[in-house]
Amino acid sequence: MAAPCGKAYEAMERSLRARVPPLLTDLYQFTMAYAYWSSGRHQEPAVFELFFREKPFGGGFSLFSGVHDCLLFLRSFRFTEQDVEYLRSVLPAATDPAFFQFLQGLDCTAVTLRSVPEGTVVFARVPLMEVAGPLAVVQLLETSLLCLVNYASLVCSNAARFRLAAGPKKKLLEMGLRRAQGPDGGLTASRYTHIGGFDLTSNVQAGFLFGIPVAGTMAHSYVTSFSSLEEVWPQTLVAANGNRDPVDLISLTRGRLCRLCDLLGAEPGKINEGELAAFLSYAIAYPHNFLPVIDSYSVSSSGLLNFCAVGLALCELGYRPVGVRLDSGDLCRQSVDVRRVFRTCRDHFSIAAFQSLVIVGTNNISEQTMVELSKKENEIDVVGVGTHLVTCTRQPSLGCVYKLVEVRGSPRMKFSEDPEKSTVPGKKAVYRLLDCEGHPFMDLLCLLEEPAPQAGQTFSCFPLGQEVAAQLVTPAQVTSLRQEVFSKGQIKHPLCSASETRAKVQSSIQNLHPRHKSLQEPESYAVALSEKLHKLISDIRRGSGGGNTGSFLLAN
Amino acid sequence: MAAPCGKAYEAMERSLRARVPPLLTDLYQFTMAYAYWSSGRHQEPAVFELFFREKPFGGGFSLFSGVHDCLLFLRSFRFTEQDVEYLRSVLPAATDPAFFQFLQGLDCTAVTLRSVPEGTVVFARVPLMEVAGPLAVVQLLETSLLCLVNYASLVCSNAARFRLAAGPKKKLLEMGLRRAQGPDGGLTASRYTHIGGFDLTSNVQAGFLFGIPVAGTMAHSYVTSFSSLEEVWPQTLVAANGNRDPVDLISLTRGRLCRLCDLLGAEPGKINEGELAAFLSYAIAYPHNFLPVIDSYSVSSSGLLNFCAVGLALCELGYRPVGVRLDSGDLCRQSVDVRRVFRTCRDHFSIAAFQSLVIVGTNNISEQTMVELSKKENEIDVVGVGTHLVTCTRQPSLGCVYKLVEVRGSPRMKFSEDPEKSTVPGKKAVYRLLDCEGHPFMDLLCLLEEPAPQAGQTFSCFPLGQEVAAQLVTPAQVTSLRQEVFSKGQIKHPLCSASETRAKVQSSIQNLHPRHKSLQEPESYAVALSEKLHKLISDIRRGSGGGNTGSFLLAN
Repeated sequence: MAAPCGKAYEAMERSLRARVPPLLTDLYQFTMAYAYWSSGRHQEPAVFELFFREKPFGGGFSLFSGVHDCLLFLRSFRFTEQDVEYLRSVLPAATDPAFFQFLQGLDCTAVTLRSVPEGTVVFARVPLMEVAGPLAVVQLLETSLLCLVNYASLVCSNAARFRLAAGPKKKLLEMGLRRAQGPDGGLTASRYTHIGGFDLTSNVQAGFLFGIPVAGTMAHSYVTSFSSLEEVWPQTLVAANGNRDPVDLISLTRGRLCRLCDLLGAEPGKINEGELAAFLSYAIAYPHNFLPVIDSYSVSSSGLLNFCAVGLALCELGYRPVGVRLDSGDLCRQSVDVRRVFRTCRDHFSIAAFQSLVIVGTNNISEQTMVELSKKENEIDVVGVGTHLVTCTRQPSLGCVYKLVEVRGSPRMKFSEDPEKSTVPGKKAVYRLLDCEGHPFMDLLCLLEEPAPQAGQTFSCFPLGQEVAAQLVTPAQVTSLRQEVFSKGQIKHPLCSASETRAKVQSSIQNLHPRHKSLQEPESYAVALSEKLHKLISDIRRGSGGGNTGSFLLAN
Repeated sequence: MAAPCGKAYEAMERSLRARVPPLLTDLYQFTMAYAYWSSGRHQEPAVFELFFREKPFGGGFSLFSGVHDCLLFLRSFRFTEQDVEYLRSVLPAATDPAFFQFLQGLDCTAVTLRSVPEGTVVFARVPLMEVAGPLAVVQLLETSLLCLVNYASLVCSNAARFRLAAGPKKKLLEMGLRRAQGPDGGLTASRYTHIGGFDLTSNVQAGFLFGIPVAGTMAHSYVTSFSSLEEVWPQTLVAANGNRDPVDLISLTRGRLCRLCDLLGAEPGKINEGELAAFLSYAIAYPHNFLPVIDSYSVSSSGLLNFCAVGLALCELGYRPVGVRLDSGDLCRQSVDVRRVFRTCRDHFSIAAFQSLVIVGTNNISEQTMVELSKKENEIDVVGVGTHLVTCTRQPSLGCVYKLVEVRGSPRMKFSEDPEKSTVPGKKAVYRLLDCEGHPFMDLLCLLEEPAPQAGQTFSCFPLGQEVAAQLVTPAQVTSLRQEVFSKGQIKHPLCSASETRAKVQSSIQNLHPRHKSLQEPESYAVALSEKLHKLISDIRRGSGGGNTGSFLLAN
């Protein structure tokens, strides 16, 4: 599906602006911006990097997402008069009024964003975005950019895990809106779980804004709203082709139901009349789209029989029933039983359409149950996943951070007693090294001015976390991981639709070596520093060890 | 603080409409609505109830929230032409075009919402909302209403637990935006954690839209952006009162720093000059609001000394420094050390302002660390909480459901092999029974037509989950739990601001008996059925046991 265009695209951009106004940030971004401004430092060129320190869900890889939304945010970043008026009321009274004029005129034309492309497979501690521009402006962007990538990347990675657990064949339906963390938690989830590997969403707004295929037929409430066949109206249906005389669908179905009870040895007394009425009524409304939920009372004693009876009647009139949904109990076992009955019907009534009926399973599916489901015998074609997918129950947040690495051309580094929390200074290039089978095996961080590593050439580098020992590597291929995606106020490449990005994601995951793709105890992926970058860190550490610091106390 | 009015109120309503358009729902709501419409049932009066089955976080109570947003949603519920055009493209081709005209004209004027008021203490299995109106319309509202109350109630309840763990004195700051599940996960969290007991938020948009007090001063990036005192500009500050001649703040601070090193036996060589420059620059920009983060390098060897030196210089010029923020390590121990140094300074320099300095602690605080923090000796005045608060790590979703209980005046019930999942049929009144000390001890569900239970009178009822044995109760007070909040398209009561609701919440929690308020292993709260409602359920169960069902197969 192509990128949504025209009205839908405008609606998407409008929706994002409404959901991510420039005030959706932390207050301290403004107090810091003011302090920079009042000391004349606000225009100093600065570089921030965005990365996460720990891989989510204990997995071997993540998918970086949210770039699309960041770009739309940057392009429209501008304070309204009302925004500035509010800021005036909350910033300290001492704030110079000229600062508000400065804010009023701000936009992102002086900001350059270099980023890993949307949906790329990424690893911990690799700088995924580099945001360069005037110190005060790039500081102001921190919270919004983090908010836009943290959850998008988390839920996209979660979806990819569900997809890996399910295997490539099953269709996956996202249906988490009602349990999502806020309306937009639901909307963001629908977009980024599609990118991560889901096929369909129940969320209509996500279909409207992002062009994602939507799906859904009925809930239990529809079934329980019926109590007798008298509520079915109209009771007739015109055949799909040929005869234009309406046929009494109730009588036809009733006949099929009697034969089914005989065939399957079912007890007519246990069949729920309200459920049959609901199915008939839905089938008359949507004869081409008959896929009812069949567990409102009892799948085996009522729902399945009612479905088959209505389905056979539809077939008789030239329609093809679509399938059934199971929403409780042991989905695997039930799906096998249901499929067996479908085959019996196909054979007994010689109805080919019963060969290809779809079985949808939805019942609080977690990654764990998805893994179990793919190991057990089952006949489920479509799996619907809600709560565990969208709220990422196993780990509901990703810890992307935004760290200053350079000011006025001079590298900056944050030290920490916890070595994991120290930052890697300087403006960088990031390369992905591939082995001779095309699998990525290392991401390499270099200083920007260094020449790129060459395919087939051996060089030494320092793996992060074990910086004492250099390691020799010889990549078969080298690719640059990031690209300039925003500069001079413009988005540099055409934005991809959700489904275009989704296709890239799937091939990107396919290129991963199985040892990094495994859901359980994957091998750690190597991230390394170039020799020059490693030396820069050593120099800065040495420089900070006393030397010139503190001496300012003695100076005049 | 009063309800936001005028422009801010309009902005809030506009924001909600943009975040919760009527397409933000599941597709099956439309296919069901069509099936009702095409069988002429769409106008049948129907009643849905909204409730959750399991209390979140293993707690004794929850806070019901999101009503405010539901009301704004209902009032503005209307499909645009563009919405309908999209629906036309995704609903099955067989859909009668007249249905889209029906949708185009839809609004909620025929819907009546009875609800527990915003922020009320509530319990599992009590119907919190009753949505009555035309079957197709109330069906269409399901997903949006669930989405609006599920996360709001969850995060509000989570905030209340943090507040209980922290005790009443500490100020609590919500600062989770960057880790929230989507932009609106952050915005919703800011509003509903304030209602649940937090004092402040870092989220500027939440301050703008909801009037919540905002707070924040500086991040580590601000500190690390400075490397030397030469970057401080201007270097002077005019005293707060009296002398208008600018004073060289660097010299003044440097003198204080030398004396501090002597006083505290600190090593000048370990003091970071960039950090001092950052503090000075911030203090010159905001001399009345000096609250730096002091752990960028080392609290005890650098940050604390730099803070005290600048703080003493500010005091000398007639300003009052505000305090410090600690963002890593053992917050309790550090806060005690910091307070001790503040007292030493107060005594040594005779500076009263150092008596009342604020210590803010922020470092990945969870409910568990908050509990520990309140048990250990510490001097923290303000605790900032982010990720664990807003993403509700312990349980990231609440399972509110929306079940049909009546159609055309006739009660509906969903059976389930799992008794917990069966619904309680019929249109109801819900009463809260209080004991003679004013503590609630039971919520009672009655049929709407029953007389209300009377204070001081003994009657029998059937506790849910143990329906076989009747129990006698004598309430000292009886209150009606729900009220009509929306009808004929109008919101019936003035909407409360976040802070007004917050005040109600706190008194509502205070009325709870400690056995229901305890964070660990609270006692279960009783929810019971009236005798008549209990009998209705028995009758329906008996009626469904065969009898008339199935017989339709034999009829003509």
